[in-house]
Amino acid sequence: MINVGIVGATGYAGEELIDICLRHPNVRITHLSAKIDKPEEISKIFPKFKGRIGLICKEPNIKEIITNCDLVFLALPHTVSMEIVPRLLSDRKKVIDLSADYRLKDAKIYAQFYETKHKDKIHLSQSIYGLPEIYRAKIENARLIANPGCYPTAAILALTPVVALNLVDLDTIIIDAKSGVTGAGRKATQDFFFSEIDEDFKAYKVNAHQHAPEINQELSKLAGKKINVTFVPHLLPLNRGILATIYVKKVQGSRFKVQGLNALYKKFYKKEPFIRIKEEGDFPKLKDVVGTNYCDIGIKDSGNIVIIIAVIDNLLKGASGQAVQNMNIMYNFPEYTALL
Amino acid sequence: MINVGIVGATGYAGEELIDICLRHPNVRITHLSAKIDKPEEISKIFPKFKGRIGLICKEPNIKEIITNCDLVFLALPHTVSMEIVPRLLSDRKKVIDLSADYRLKDAKIYAQFYETKHKDKIHLSQSIYGLPEIYRAKIENARLIANPGCYPTAAILALTPVVALNLVDLDTIIIDAKSGVTGAGRKATQDFFFSEIDEDFKAYKVNAHQHAPEINQELSKLAGKKINVTFVPHLLPLNRGILATIYVKKVQGSRFKVQGLNALYKKFYKKEPFIRIKEEGDFPKLKDVVGTNYCDIGIKDSGNIVIIIAVIDNLLKGASGQAVQNMNIMYNFPEYTALL
Amino acid sequence: MINVGIVGATGYAGEELIDICLRHPNVRITHLSAKIDKPEEISKIFPKFKGRIGLICKEPNIKEIITNCDLVFLALPHTVSMEIVPRLLSDRKKVIDLSADYRLKDAKIYAQFYETKHKDKIHLSQSIYGLPEIYRAKIENARLIANPGCYPTAAILALTPVVALNLVDLDTIIIDAKSGVTGAGRKATQDFFFSEIDEDFKAYKVNAHQHAPEINQELSKLAGKKINVTFVPHLLPLNRGILATIYVKKVQGSRFKVQGLNALYKKFYKKEPFIRIKEEGDFPKLKDVVGTNYCDIGIKDSGNIVIIIAVIDNLLKGASGQAVQNMNIMYNFPEYTALL
Amino acid sequence: MINVGIVGATGYAGEELIDICLRHPNVRITHLSAKIDKPEEISKIFPKFKGRIGLICKEPNIKEIITNCDLVFLALPHTVSMEIVPRLLSDRKKVIDLSADYRLKDAKIYAQFYETKHKDKIHLSQSIYGLPEIYRAKIENARLIANPGCYPTAAILALTPVVALNLVDLDTIIIDAKSGVTGAGRKATQDFFFSEIDEDFKAYKVNAHQHAPEINQELSKLAGKKINVTFVPHLLPLNRGILATIYVKKVQGSRFKVQGLNALYKKFYKKEPFIRIKEEGDFPKLKDVVGTNYCDIGIKDSGNIVIIIAVIDNLLKGASGQAVQNMNIMYNFPEYTALL
Repeated sequence: MINVGIVGATGYAGEELIDICLRHPNVRITHLSAKIDKPEEISKIFPKFKGRIGLICKEPNIKEIITNCDLVFLALPHTVSMEIVPRLLSDRKKVIDLSADYRLKDAKIYAQFYETKHKDKIHLSQSIYGLPEIYRAKIENARLIANPGCYPTAAILALTPVVALNLVDLDTIIIDAKSGVTGAGRKATQDFFFSEIDEDFKAYKVNAHQHAPEINQELSKLAGKKINVTFVPHLLPLNRGILATIYVKKVQGSRFKVQGLNALYKKFYKKEPFIRIKEEGDFPKLKDVVGTNYCDIGIKDSGNIVIIIAVIDNLLKGASGQAVQNMNIMYNFPEYTALL
Repeated sequence: MINVGIVGATGYAGEELIDICLRHPNVRITHLSAKIDKPEEISKIFPKFKGRIGLICKEPNIKEIITNCDLVFLALPHTVSMEIVPRLLSDRKKVIDLSADYRLKDAKIYAQFYETKHKDKIHLSQSIYGLPEIYRAKIENARLIANPGCYPTAAILALTPVVALNLVDLDTIIIDAKSGVTGAGRKATQDFFFSEIDEDFKAYKVNAHQHAPEINQELSKLAGKKINVTFVPHLLPLNRGILATIYVKKVQGSRFKVQGLNALYKKFYKKEPFIRIKEEGDFPKLKDVVGTNYCDIGIKDSGNIVIIIAVIDNLLKGASGQAVQNMNIMYNFPEYTALL
Repeated sequence: MINVGIVGATGYAGEELIDICLRHPNVRITHLSAKIDKPEEISKIFPKFKGRIGLICKEPNIKEIITNCDLVFLALPHTVSMEIVPRLLSDRKKVIDLSADYRLKDAKIYAQFYETKHKDKIHLSQSIYGLPEIYRAKIENARLIANPGCYPTAAILALTPVVALNLVDLDTIIIDAKSGVTGAGRKATQDFFFSEIDEDFKAYKVNAHQHAPEINQELSKLAGKKINVTFVPHLLPLNRGILATIYVKKVQGSRFKVQGLNALYKKFYKKEPFIRIKEEGDFPKLKDVVGTNYCDIGIKDSGNIVIIIAVIDNLLKGASGQAVQNMNIMYNFPEYTALL
Repeated sequence: MINVGIVGATGYAGEELIDICLRHPNVRITHLSAKIDKPEEISKIFPKFKGRIGLICKEPNIKEIITNCDLVFLALPHTVSMEIVPRLLSDRKKVIDLSADYRLKDAKIYAQFYETKHKDKIHLSQSIYGLPEIYRAKIENARLIANPGCYPTAAILALTPVVALNLVDLDTIIIDAKSGVTGAGRKATQDFFFSEIDEDFKAYKVNAHQHAPEINQELSKLAGKKINVTFVPHLLPLNRGILATIYVKKVQGSRFKVQGLNALYKKFYKKEPFIRIKEEGDFPKLKDVVGTNYCDIGIKDSGNIVIIIAVIDNLLKGASGQAVQNMNIMYNFPEYTALL
């Protein structure tokens, strides 16, 4: 039984973490905090939790966190996490950071995309990118997890087999991604009003999104070569889910044959509890994964082009579910605990 | 050809007024203003108008309005209109005010529900409540129209025949109303974010909404007796439309018989261009009227209880469409001009 | 550990039963069947279950059901259940029937509303109406549960305290109910196409819905007097959830005072694990209960009228959740097992 | 004043044609027909038209059509149009066919994608592809218009400048398209039920859609070279609108420079009444065009890749609006009549 704190409990990821942790047999939630006007019962903020948890949510207080928690989930806006992480680590707490603060190993790229200097380069160099399908062994012993972004989770999982095995042209990877609205967080801008989004659809940050360098960093590591993907995110008029449609060009003399690609993906991911590969000709839809921690992937070998479609729930495998998966690995709980 | 100004052009009602006026053969839009950071082409703010109108939208300037306009639509938040109306009227402009400022004849009730003292009681006493089905003759010569609220338009049109003819118990009128999100205006509160509203439904201001006194005022006039309706509004996860389900009790010895009620409504409204009565057993749905200026009404005589269902587009018959209908009457244009 | 069959596994209620049973520590799903062209893995039909269950779904076969199951959930269309129930009961299986076939004790009313003669009056007279908040003691020993309809669950739970305690006028109860689309089941009529429902809202079966006699039956029992409610259901453009807004008139000399009503409801339901009463002035919204087995209720004492608002998830407390709650009671499992 | 018939009046495109024609000052609707059980007032089928049109909709009867109409819109399912067109043309009627029957000049490809042999090759060879931006001169004198598909309209308009001017690699054109649900027509399959689509998103007919050969045919003509695009359509949970995100690779030594591309598009389309090019860095969203006949296009020059985003209303510029635009050209009415 471990004591867990959730900082940033009132956002979408925080709300989801509470929900998962309440179902987790090895976890006791001992701390909830957020930027908040005055302390308030969490079940007042989220009436759906009434009768299930009695905690008060208040402004974060580092001492209280340290006193009450073994592990801390930080579901904070970018740039806020790195203010808190050093003190938590120095008190030997384990931290799973859902923000982008510890994901990009190159602080210059961080500064460019998040428009602020990085303030904690020491821990940045030690953080583990929390994608279990790639870094499971390192996650087991990690003290600081940089939980991946939602788009990168879908894109990297979809591309890892072909990139790691060097089967496609690395210079022309195109990722056309579509996300539900919770991906933007619970922030108060007019762009996210119901009447602006309902019955609408648009691209945004066209090939200029802050998740592109994260995807590039991980794919480049896999390929052993600098990769720059073309990445265009779009906003879907729905709550949850990401679908990424990915176009890659086969390399000349590539080893895989028609219908070989599905088998290759199945083999590549065969031990993974949360990756499911569709049958040849089948593609996943959002509903297959929303409410779950799965990433479902369909592949079509279409002449020179290979089309890969991956779906995740942006708040689960794309955020809080993956964070708990990481926690389960760190504490040697069965990896799927509270996630099925 | 008249010159028209729209103050509050960036809200939902303002946007809709632009759209209607661009289709109106007797209208030239000569002024657009709104609370806005810096002057901007209206076609930048609403790209759908690009190529159809070249005007700049800026902060309202009374002198410019007076110089450029014959008639002014005020699509402003409540309490702002009454700051401007006196000056417009003193310069002999005609004004159609879409806010609540000139609707409630009793300034005390206004103060109670809009939480501010009324500042222009002189014109309040002269304003005409812009519901053509009741006040057409007065609208013809009006200089200041108080354009009705969206809920009151639906509720009053649905109830007028039975209340005016004294057929139902006036003490137990129940109005269960449901509105799309644009009814709340384009305002920046977290309650109206997409993810708060999508797939949700709730009642709000339960029997405490500011449109109740407006309904009470008009029904009381019709009945010649003080009426207090029970009014519960609800928020629908969709953009446009109001559906009001109304429950009234027949009075003992009431003159109408089963199946007589439909005929009665048809006769009552037979000359009205924008009221359509459904056949016995048929009820209207939002889609029948969204995008139109119609109010469709269905009635069921059900034992002691009569159920009346009325639908309107809250931005058209419930706001901007009705405002243009009023303008058409004031200028003796065919009443349906630009509204079909 | 009990063996459970789900007949009608491909409908919304069936899908939900699978989901709940997969999380239930005392349940093994041993049979899945439905009206289906050819046998197919359930994880092909619902890809979200892939990796979690390997069963084939086929046409129902009574012998197989009897061989493999201790308890059978019937999630079938009305009139089909009564063909199967007698044989299951004669083989000493326990049955929880989610259809309407065993709810209405008066077979004449059944025939009138479901347009077919009842074929199993013997078991009809023995069935227990599966609303735990009223019939828990009888459910414990039941062999045949008539699981309540979705609208009746919300309406009866909302009205039980005031009706049982005789606090309101029983002749003028008005229930204005709004339901998500899954309430209609997964049936193929053009009325339920996306483009017919999206951005629309309407009333249907106005005071003529087959759930009215079910509500009347149970309220009449509570009151010891024949009750005929006015019941108008509406269709919301969303997937899940029912919100019922109920209007009742206080009886003269009624014992409760302003603010007394909330306390009364809290006291009435204080031992119920799935009923939550809102604070005075607070009302529930769909999101508070969607995905849960709770029924949340808010009450406003408003002069002569009392307004009661109840919300449930139509597929959980309104169908499959309540069915599992009944199963938990029948087998003496903790009542909330797999439902939190 | 011309007499117009609409065959297939009860589908989405037919409904939209009625709406546009009712606003058209030079058009009288003289015939409405559809596959229908029994003749019925069109205002019964679409209550929103009540009071605006009194026609009866019945089963199509060729003689009546020929007697009553100068021009006929065929808004029929594919393969039905070619049964009717020969007789209409032989009676010297003008025909605008919204189906795919006269679009693909190669009858073999038609047979492959529409799974039936073409039965009217003579007229197929004479039909004019009704995309005014390319074929305006031919449309003026046409007797049979093959009105373009919705996806092809968006894709071809977006690609014409770079393909016609030979600026991009023709072998690697990728079209990632997203459409609202009305694009599928008003047909009764379970895939299009509200609860299957709401809150979901998916790709379908991945690189196997029947609109791909239509796009290929027209782009190949423009390029003077065989083109095979990669085309992946997706289904959006909304009613109306198509957004196509297109990825093309610049050719080595291509003549255009950064920021030159926007100017090039503006120049290319400068006389077109319904094409609007966004400013550099701006991209269109569905709401900019839904309810209009515009196609809005945004372009980003992004290293080796050019990203082009085009939006249309699938029922207007993608179907009925474009059909009326074609009619306006054929009869020498101002091209935008009834379309603004």
